[in-house]
Amino acid sequence: MMRFAVIGLGNFGSHLAQTLAKSGAEVLAIDKDLVLIEQFKHEVTRAVSLDTTVQNNLKMASLTDMDAVIVTIGEHSVEASIMTTALIAGLGVEWLIARSTSSLHGRILKLVGAHEVINPEQFVAQKLVRRITQPNVLELAAISDDGYSMSDITAPPSFYGKTLAELELRKKYGLNVIAIKQRKRKLLPDGTEQLQEKVNHNPGPDDKIQENDIISCIGKREQIDKVASMKR
Amino acid sequence: MMRFAVIGLGNFGSHLAQTLAKSGAEVLAIDKDLVLIEQFKHEVTRAVSLDTTVQNNLKMASLTDMDAVIVTIGEHSVEASIMTTALIAGLGVEWLIARSTSSLHGRILKLVGAHEVINPEQFVAQKLVRRITQPNVLELAAISDDGYSMSDITAPPSFYGKTLAELELRKKYGLNVIAIKQRKRKLLPDGTEQLQEKVNHNPGPDDKIQENDIISCIGKREQIDKVASMKR
Repeated sequence: MMRFAVIGLGNFGSHLAQTLAKSGAEVLAIDKDLVLIEQFKHEVTRAVSLDTTVQNNLKMASLTDMDAVIVTIGEHSVEASIMTTALIAGLGVEWLIARSTSSLHGRILKLVGAHEVINPEQFVAQKLVRRITQPNVLELAAISDDGYSMSDITAPPSFYGKTLAELELRKKYGLNVIAIKQRKRKLLPDGTEQLQEKVNHNPGPDDKIQENDIISCIGKREQIDKVASMKR
Repeated sequence: MMRFAVIGLGNFGSHLAQTLAKSGAEVLAIDKDLVLIEQFKHEVTRAVSLDTTVQNNLKMASLTDMDAVIVTIGEHSVEASIMTTALIAGLGVEWLIARSTSSLHGRILKLVGAHEVINPEQFVAQKLVRRITQPNVLELAAISDDGYSMSDITAPPSFYGKTLAELELRKKYGLNVIAIKQRKRKLLPDGTEQLQEKVNHNPGPDDKIQENDIISCIGKREQIDKVASMKR
């Protein structure tokens, strides 16, 4: 069984600890705040109230037995985040991940010994920008550093009623279509409408694009943007 | 040109405002704190110091002209986040996105009129859990709600030297291989080593899997996990 320690039970840490525990891992949750420990003690394997900026306190926590230690302090105290990370790095744990709240904070965490630094707000801000500036493209994942990504595109009206063979997306744009998502409005018994999604995970040359369809495809970003911004 | 207003210049809001401005959009940044406004005023189209919890202040900001308004307050004041969101919803803006810091906060933001709610810490916590509990799988994206995802898998040693045709991953596991990433150690002139990645974006049946390769593939999560946890 995998073992993790999550230090800090703020918004990020508490979600992390709960989700790790649900995945079947052993989770030790640590926070200075006794109220938070009370709140989460039944959600994790063990919850302990400790001030992690004091070296002697850390020795009790057996952190070197963990597969990974994640320091999620930082929402409220950058100082405690840096001190805790430096002390834990000194213990020689296997995999030390620390949460940063700014690029300077991130640089310092690396310098004091974090193996990996995560800034949730920065990560999500970048995802959100692409989604709101290109509302017809939902980038699902960057595949490699050379500009390939997997994205969901709202099908342009000129595609409606055509088959994949007719559209020649691979030949014309280098796009590899991996799924077609059909969205259909369904009238519920109470008179309201619901949008239902049906996914074709193995689309073939004879499959047709319909109105409201979403095309999941892989290709270069510029080509994806080109198709997504075709006249509607 | 697209226009956005970002309200709150904390860690999330400042990244969002800067990235939106870099993408070529017009960005109005608002924060109560004059120091933050001074710091970011050259990064965005316009930066204004306003207390957004006061209805009359909001009228000056022409928020109804925006393609989207994003309320990113919340790191420091849930109260200001809720009041601001409720006031802006009352103006009738086109697309109102609000950042939440807990599920209760998120529910309230929806109730007072946010069209969409984002919790960056929760989102990233879930991504991180999958990555650290399954270190051989990097989930790049969930494709649909029925368990399909695109993931990067560290190739198990039993795959080394075999071609895709020989491995029959589609037939045996329903996995669609969309890229093979070769990682090679390169010796630099100064004697240090660097890991270089070369991506084959269009792998064919005759392409071989080598040691250290990463396989990008699409399929059901259970099947991906099965291949990723094969004996190494």
